Amino acid sequence: MRVSIIGGGTVTEEKIDVAAETGRSLARRGHTVVCGGLGGVMEAACRGAKEADGRTVGILPTDRRADANEYVDVAVATGLGHARNALVPMNGDAVIAIGGSGGTLSEIGFSFVYDRPVAGLGTHDVPGVEACETPEEAVEYVEREV
Amino acid sequence: MRVSIIGGGTVTEEKIDVAAETGRSLARRGHTVVCGGLGGVMEAACRGAKEADGRTVGILPTDRRADANEYVDVAVATGLGHARNALVPMNGDAVIAIGGSGGTLSEIGFSFVYDRPVAGLGTHDVPGVEACETPEEAVEYVEREV
Amino acid sequence: MRVSIIGGGTVTEEKIDVAAETGRSLARRGHTVVCGGLGGVMEAACRGAKEADGRTVGILPTDRRADANEYVDVAVATGLGHARNALVPMNGDAVIAIGGSGGTLSEIGFSFVYDRPVAGLGTHDVPGVEACETPEEAVEYVEREV
Amino acid sequence: MRVSIIGGGTVTEEKIDVAAETGRSLARRGHTVVCGGLGGVMEAACRGAKEADGRTVGILPTDRRADANEYVDVAVATGLGHARNALVPMNGDAVIAIGGSGGTLSEIGFSFVYDRPVAGLGTHDVPGVEACETPEEAVEYVEREV
Repeated sequence: MRVSIIGGGTVTEEKIDVAAETGRSLARRGHTVVCGGLGGVMEAACRGAKEADGRTVGILPTDRRADANEYVDVAVATGLGHARNALVPMNGDAVIAIGGSGGTLSEIGFSFVYDRPVAGLGTHDVPGVEACETPEEAVEYVEREV
Repeated sequence: MRVSIIGGGTVTEEKIDVAAETGRSLARRGHTVVCGGLGGVMEAACRGAKEADGRTVGILPTDRRADANEYVDVAVATGLGHARNALVPMNGDAVIAIGGSGGTLSEIGFSFVYDRPVAGLGTHDVPGVEACETPEEAVEYVEREV
Repeated sequence: MRVSIIGGGTVTEEKIDVAAETGRSLARRGHTVVCGGLGGVMEAACRGAKEADGRTVGILPTDRRADANEYVDVAVATGLGHARNALVPMNGDAVIAIGGSGGTLSEIGFSFVYDRPVAGLGTHDVPGVEACETPEEAVEYVEREV
Repeated sequence: MRVSIIGGGTVTEEKIDVAAETGRSLARRGHTVVCGGLGGVMEAACRGAKEADGRTVGILPTDRRADANEYVDVAVATGLGHARNALVPMNGDAVIAIGGSGGTLSEIGFSFVYDRPVAGLGTHDVPGVEACETPEEAVEYVEREV
C-alpha cells in the first residue's frame, strides 16, 4: 500500500533518524512512501525507503519538480503552496506523523477528513492519532488498520 | 478586521447558538466574518453577523456560488474540495474555532501556518488555541492578539 | 450580476484604457467586477469600476490579501499560484477578456468549462469568444447571453 | 523526459487511435506519459504507453486514486476539480495536445504559462501550438524543443 509520512521540514536529529527508519521499515514491507517531497522528515523518510529499495512519491508545494529531494522517485509539482497539504494524506492509504508543527497538524486534520488511520511518532497529541513508540510499531499499526 | 470562523457543518444546537452569538459580536464591533460558506457553524455565524448588520464572506469548497448559505454577502466558489480549508484562515486576520472535527483541525493547522491567533470555543484542545468560555471572550482575545 | 474581467498584468496603455472603460461600463449598469486582483488589466478594470461607484472582487494567486491592487473591495487570497485562474471565470456569471497571453488563455478555457459566455476585446482569437469592438459592445453581449 | 498528453475525456475513435499511438511512440523513446488520469485521450495515451512498456502518471481531478484508468502506474489524486488542469502541463517537460475542448484549452494556456513547448494533433488552432500531422511528428517536435 501507500503510506504518507508527514512531518516538518526543520526537525531534530532524532526525528530525522525516526523518519529514515520509518521509511526503511515501510519499504522492507513493500509499501510506497508518499510525502511532501521537501527536506527534513520528508527527505529522511524517502532516503530510508530508497536504502531498502522502496518507492517514493513527493507531492510538492511549488510548481517545480526540481524542488524535490534527491530520494523522490516520482515528483509531483502542484504550485498550490500549503494547500497541497490536503493532497499528502489523500494520496496514502494510511498516515504516519513524525514531529511537525502547524503544517503537520493540518495534514492530520485532512487524514481524518479522508478517513486515513494515523500513527504518531512524537507528534501532536490529538485524539485519533495512535501514539507509537517506534517506527515498527507505527508501521504495524497502519498495516493493521487499513 | 476580518475574522475567520471555523467549525463543522453538522453540530449541536448549543454550538449553533455559540456561532450565531460570535457572528453578532464580531459584527457589532465592525469586523467582517469569513467562513467556509456552508451550513452548521458557518451558517449560524453568518446569520448572527447579518442580524447585527455585519458583513460576511463565504469561501466554498464547491464550484457553485449558489451553494453558499443565505447569509453570505460575498460568496467565493473555489471547486477545491477540502483543500479550500487552507483559504479560510488565510483570509482572516484571526480565527475563532467552534466545535468541529477533522476539517476544523486542518483549518487550525493552517491558522498556525499563516500565523493567525486562534480562539477556541469547545473545539480541539491543541496547544496554541486559546480556550475561551464565551463568544465575547473569544472576540476580545482575537482583537487583542492581532 | 458578476462579470469576470480577465487579461494580463503587463499590457499596453490602450488595453489599460479599454479595461478601465469596461469596468466603468459594468459598474454603471450595476454589475460587480471580478478579477485576479493584481495589476495591468485587473487594476484598470477595478479602478474603472470604482470611478463609477461599482463593486470589485479580486481573487489573488498569492496567500496575502495585501497583494491586491488598491481598487479591490473584497480581496480573496488563495495561495494557489496560477491554479487560481480556474477561480476567476468560476466566480463570474460571464467573462470579458482583454488582451492577455497564456494565463488569459487558460481562463478562457475555464470559461468554456464553466459555460460562461465570453466577450473578447483584442484578445485570443478562439472560437467561442465573441470578438467585440468596444467595452459597451462587450458589456451588452454578456448581458444578453447570461 | 516527461511529456504531458492533454485532451478530452469524450473523443472520436480516430482521436483515441492517435492518442494510443502517441503514448506508444513516447514510451518507445523512453519518455514517461503524464496525463489527467481519466478516460478518452488520457486512457488511450496511457494504454499505448503501457503497450510499449512505458511509464504513466495520472493527475486526477477527484480525491480518489481509484478513479484513475487502469493503465496509470502512479495515480495522484488532487480533489481540485478542474483546477488540477494547471498541474498536468506543470508536470511535463513538454505537452502534446490531442483534440479537446475547454479543459484542453485551459491546459494549453497553462503550458504557455510554464513555458512548455506544445505540439498539437487536431486540437485548438492557437498561436504557439505546433500543428503536427502524426504522433511521430509531435514526439519529434517536443524532443527537439525541450
